[in-house]
Amino acid sequence: MKTFFTFLLLLIISYPVVSQTREKGPWWPNATWGAQDEAGASNWITPDKIIKALTYAKEGKVFELGHPYERTMPFGGTRSYKLSVVDTGPAAGTNKQLGNEEVISGELGQVGTQFDGPGHIGALIKYGDGTMKGVYYNGFTQEEVVHPDGLRHLGVHNVKPIISRGILVDIPLYKGIGRLTNSYEVTLADVRGALAKQGIAEGSITPGDVIIFRYGWAQLWNTPQEYNRNPPGIGLEVAHWLIDKKVTMTGADTAPTEVQPNPNKELVVPVHQELIMKNGIFNLENMDLESLAASKVYEFLFIFTPTRFVGASGSPGRPIAIR
Amino acid sequence: MKTFFTFLLLLIISYPVVSQTREKGPWWPNATWGAQDEAGASNWITPDKIIKALTYAKEGKVFELGHPYERTMPFGGTRSYKLSVVDTGPAAGTNKQLGNEEVISGELGQVGTQFDGPGHIGALIKYGDGTMKGVYYNGFTQEEVVHPDGLRHLGVHNVKPIISRGILVDIPLYKGIGRLTNSYEVTLADVRGALAKQGIAEGSITPGDVIIFRYGWAQLWNTPQEYNRNPPGIGLEVAHWLIDKKVTMTGADTAPTEVQPNPNKELVVPVHQELIMKNGIFNLENMDLESLAASKVYEFLFIFTPTRFVGASGSPGRPIAIR
Amino acid sequence: MKTFFTFLLLLIISYPVVSQTREKGPWWPNATWGAQDEAGASNWITPDKIIKALTYAKEGKVFELGHPYERTMPFGGTRSYKLSVVDTGPAAGTNKQLGNEEVISGELGQVGTQFDGPGHIGALIKYGDGTMKGVYYNGFTQEEVVHPDGLRHLGVHNVKPIISRGILVDIPLYKGIGRLTNSYEVTLADVRGALAKQGIAEGSITPGDVIIFRYGWAQLWNTPQEYNRNPPGIGLEVAHWLIDKKVTMTGADTAPTEVQPNPNKELVVPVHQELIMKNGIFNLENMDLESLAASKVYEFLFIFTPTRFVGASGSPGRPIAIR
Amino acid sequence: MKTFFTFLLLLIISYPVVSQTREKGPWWPNATWGAQDEAGASNWITPDKIIKALTYAKEGKVFELGHPYERTMPFGGTRSYKLSVVDTGPAAGTNKQLGNEEVISGELGQVGTQFDGPGHIGALIKYGDGTMKGVYYNGFTQEEVVHPDGLRHLGVHNVKPIISRGILVDIPLYKGIGRLTNSYEVTLADVRGALAKQGIAEGSITPGDVIIFRYGWAQLWNTPQEYNRNPPGIGLEVAHWLIDKKVTMTGADTAPTEVQPNPNKELVVPVHQELIMKNGIFNLENMDLESLAASKVYEFLFIFTPTRFVGASGSPGRPIAIR
Repeated sequence: MKTFFTFLLLLIISYPVVSQTREKGPWWPNATWGAQDEAGASNWITPDKIIKALTYAKEGKVFELGHPYERTMPFGGTRSYKLSVVDTGPAAGTNKQLGNEEVISGELGQVGTQFDGPGHIGALIKYGDGTMKGVYYNGFTQEEVVHPDGLRHLGVHNVKPIISRGILVDIPLYKGIGRLTNSYEVTLADVRGALAKQGIAEGSITPGDVIIFRYGWAQLWNTPQEYNRNPPGIGLEVAHWLIDKKVTMTGADTAPTEVQPNPNKELVVPVHQELIMKNGIFNLENMDLESLAASKVYEFLFIFTPTRFVGASGSPGRPIAIR
Repeated sequence: MKTFFTFLLLLIISYPVVSQTREKGPWWPNATWGAQDEAGASNWITPDKIIKALTYAKEGKVFELGHPYERTMPFGGTRSYKLSVVDTGPAAGTNKQLGNEEVISGELGQVGTQFDGPGHIGALIKYGDGTMKGVYYNGFTQEEVVHPDGLRHLGVHNVKPIISRGILVDIPLYKGIGRLTNSYEVTLADVRGALAKQGIAEGSITPGDVIIFRYGWAQLWNTPQEYNRNPPGIGLEVAHWLIDKKVTMTGADTAPTEVQPNPNKELVVPVHQELIMKNGIFNLENMDLESLAASKVYEFLFIFTPTRFVGASGSPGRPIAIR
Repeated sequence: MKTFFTFLLLLIISYPVVSQTREKGPWWPNATWGAQDEAGASNWITPDKIIKALTYAKEGKVFELGHPYERTMPFGGTRSYKLSVVDTGPAAGTNKQLGNEEVISGELGQVGTQFDGPGHIGALIKYGDGTMKGVYYNGFTQEEVVHPDGLRHLGVHNVKPIISRGILVDIPLYKGIGRLTNSYEVTLADVRGALAKQGIAEGSITPGDVIIFRYGWAQLWNTPQEYNRNPPGIGLEVAHWLIDKKVTMTGADTAPTEVQPNPNKELVVPVHQELIMKNGIFNLENMDLESLAASKVYEFLFIFTPTRFVGASGSPGRPIAIR
Repeated sequence: MKTFFTFLLLLIISYPVVSQTREKGPWWPNATWGAQDEAGASNWITPDKIIKALTYAKEGKVFELGHPYERTMPFGGTRSYKLSVVDTGPAAGTNKQLGNEEVISGELGQVGTQFDGPGHIGALIKYGDGTMKGVYYNGFTQEEVVHPDGLRHLGVHNVKPIISRGILVDIPLYKGIGRLTNSYEVTLADVRGALAKQGIAEGSITPGDVIIFRYGWAQLWNTPQEYNRNPPGIGLEVAHWLIDKKVTMTGADTAPTEVQPNPNKELVVPVHQELIMKNGIFNLENMDLESLAASKVYEFLFIFTPTRFVGASGSPGRPIAIR
């Protein structure tokens, strides 16, 4: 019941969309990294943070946290991924060189294991002068951001390599089940329960940490229809906790990380807005956390280096954990 | 003069292409990682190797070693790269969510900062039974490897994350010049001279290390015609030294890493064949080593995680050094 | 001087953008083909019109009116075209079947010889209720039309095959020069002069005819920089004459058909708006009219069948004339 | 029984693959159009042929013979088609111009209504000198034809516009059924029976005619799994009859036009080889013949203008019939 009221309260605080100007708005942390910042919460990854993060690798064992990219992946909506091998021609030189390359096309950055950068999600809001404007992280407007050849601001290339302390929050472990059910909203109580069960003190979380949620959903990766249907996930309650913790990135083993649909049916991916747009906190989706969980690895060196596609909304890549 | 004879001798040893079978051939290190191996020299990256590599990060300072990806990059031949921003539609929900994503197409893995995987380069050779066959790393044949939807063997997804000790070999520093000249072949003497000048003992190189050559060529990145015209690079002499050292990966700040054209005009990218095809040693091309060199960072934690595009010949990505 | 005033008058009539509603607006010919029409001026191509058009083919000689599609074409802005051949695999069956196919990508419909469909061009206008809305042919709004997976209305697949009487208007012939100069605006006097010289009575033009302008610009096709720099073309004066004549389609041997830039520097492709948006008159660009002109063929059976890419703004294809 | 022996005989004549040289081979009609010909049976479309063809349009009524292109089409194997709308930017000029374009990618020419050009299908054959070589129409070799950036010979751009007399052969009409059954091979007796029932004298067929087979299969277009499973079609018997008739093009309402699989399970698309490779007779697949058949239109003006994608194996487009 208390959770429900907290939830309501948060909703009231966040919505409806309020009037604001770029100079003065509740949504972007200008105070933190300045009005021109486009790197968001990756700014928490300082040299000291990195040196500390490396100490979580005790044995050098690597865990893959992403899925390989292939045409049989579950896709959101009508997104696509296509790889075609191209033979570079007949044997060349007296050394009879042969070669292959490939043409790849698709919504890279928004298919497979996918990283949402600062320009992926915005909102249409009413400005102080009464006009409606699209707005993105740190107050950049639709007009400043969107361009057919690549975002003019907030492209994913602005995000710093994410080398940090990673924490796995294994919700099914806490619940004692194999995987969560459709549309289940993970509560803050769940998160705290899981951390406690895993032996991680909530107070140990420091700015720049990467907090990844396991729902057990990667088990459905090879059955795309089931995978795509109403996944469980965090909601606004946990989103605000992540914001309080000043994490650099969250992520999970579903396509949106957040619960689908939101319990408030009038909201469309509100967690994305809270994290990415308002706080520059990134979101790595479609992860595969099964082997990490099976090995009971809950704290680790986390590495993800978003590919610097200039002006892209997101990035594919290969997140790993090193214990 | 001695170098020249060594070079000749190496050529004679390596060419012309000799008859061999998959079971018995001088070209692939079956003995090392087994007949089914597709990970090549990334197998050198063991847990112990990783733990040792992390110790090279003393301060946590990150250096970008690659270029951002954009349509103005220098391209090899007719390769291409295209990013188009797609607006995901009108404001959704009462939270007025806006979104962007992108469609990307092109020879990803062979444009921009590009990593050559085990299936990129092969050779047409005469087999013991007299037939000519295309052959790749570890003896996989053209028939086993090539498929229009993705390489059936030796796809880049088989390569392990490359987290190792990195060594920069700064040839222009050794030569006392800004950058090398067109078609200059870097000799083993140059490499040894540079290592000595940089204070790195050749004997300290151990299997799995990553050795990266700076030619100063990234200075030409923004003038594609100059960048693409006959870059300097290593030749077969240095390639064989790299093989002896059992490195996991080499790379440089030019498109082919190796000198273009080869001094022996009859050979087409022979260093690629020696390294990738015969020894499973990978090659990261079109790097940007200027800031690393300017900071005189010669030993470092090197991180590159090839994106697991299933069946691809190569991978884009974001190599970094951490001092 | 008179032309200049006519021009000014037309500008005043057309601009600034006036308030209107979908139900009542000066811009779309609801009266002609109904409020749901998406086929525009291709509706003029009736069975009778086709039977009459066929009579212009006297000898059966075919003239190609388009350019072949290749990567060396002049492109507008950052548009692109890429074709990669894909080998479909090893010889199959005892008949040892080999096969090739290709992957093509790019702004098809807006590269090379390109046909602008009804959803290509719109305008932002003020509606009766004071709101600003994007609007397209026949009053369809931005919201009704635009969708990331294909236009929801006014896709090029709605256009009927264009089989009609074609008329070539050879302006350089009339002017006695090889080709027009940069940014020259073709006047109505030019058009009338050319028709007269060619022996075509203006009064013979009937609804559904296709009127194609030759500027001699295809001579620059192989020098893309020259081709793209400020081509000559028709302006609003001739556009309104085309509208009066109720043509189905116009076209020319430049990228925009209309003069670039418009003599009124504040207007961006206004002829496109007049023809496509307000009147559903289509525009076939980047034609090659040299052989037709060399053979002095001024009236002909014109055939162009826009490819039915559902929801596309335009179409590539192969326009031909048959004398 | 007689048919069966004819079939066997044809098989024996055609297979196994015989030794031949480019200069002397049974497979390509050098004698007809010369050793350099790349236009194949489109050469039958002479000016006289066109003038005669136009006379089949009596009423000017147009029938669409192809399907629109969309992402829900049935695809062969892993082929793909993707269209993404790109907004060209904010309102431009005082005329507030808005614009849309699209990025399209996929195996164009081999998806949807698709035209197989002269370079689509070849065979691996033994040459006079004992070597095995890939060979295509008119004796062009794999080496001469295949290039990653586009076929160097036999690209679809060599095919002339196909404007000819069209004949619909409605097999289900003859059989008195709604559509043929899976894997049914249409016999020559079927074809002759259908022509007779439709009132078309076989003797009226002249070189350059276009003969299109209806199987009723377009009824399954919206159920891709059923559509793709073992369609009926012509076999080698009818293929040889088409060759005798010197048609320019055949086609049908299935993906391969020919029966799948071939009754001789060792043969892979042998009709493609007979028609395209050996005789330069083209094949238009995935047609929609339902409305034409419903209107009992069996002879007509046929128009298909392959898009001149340089070096492509095939072409999309919009075939039409005009009665």
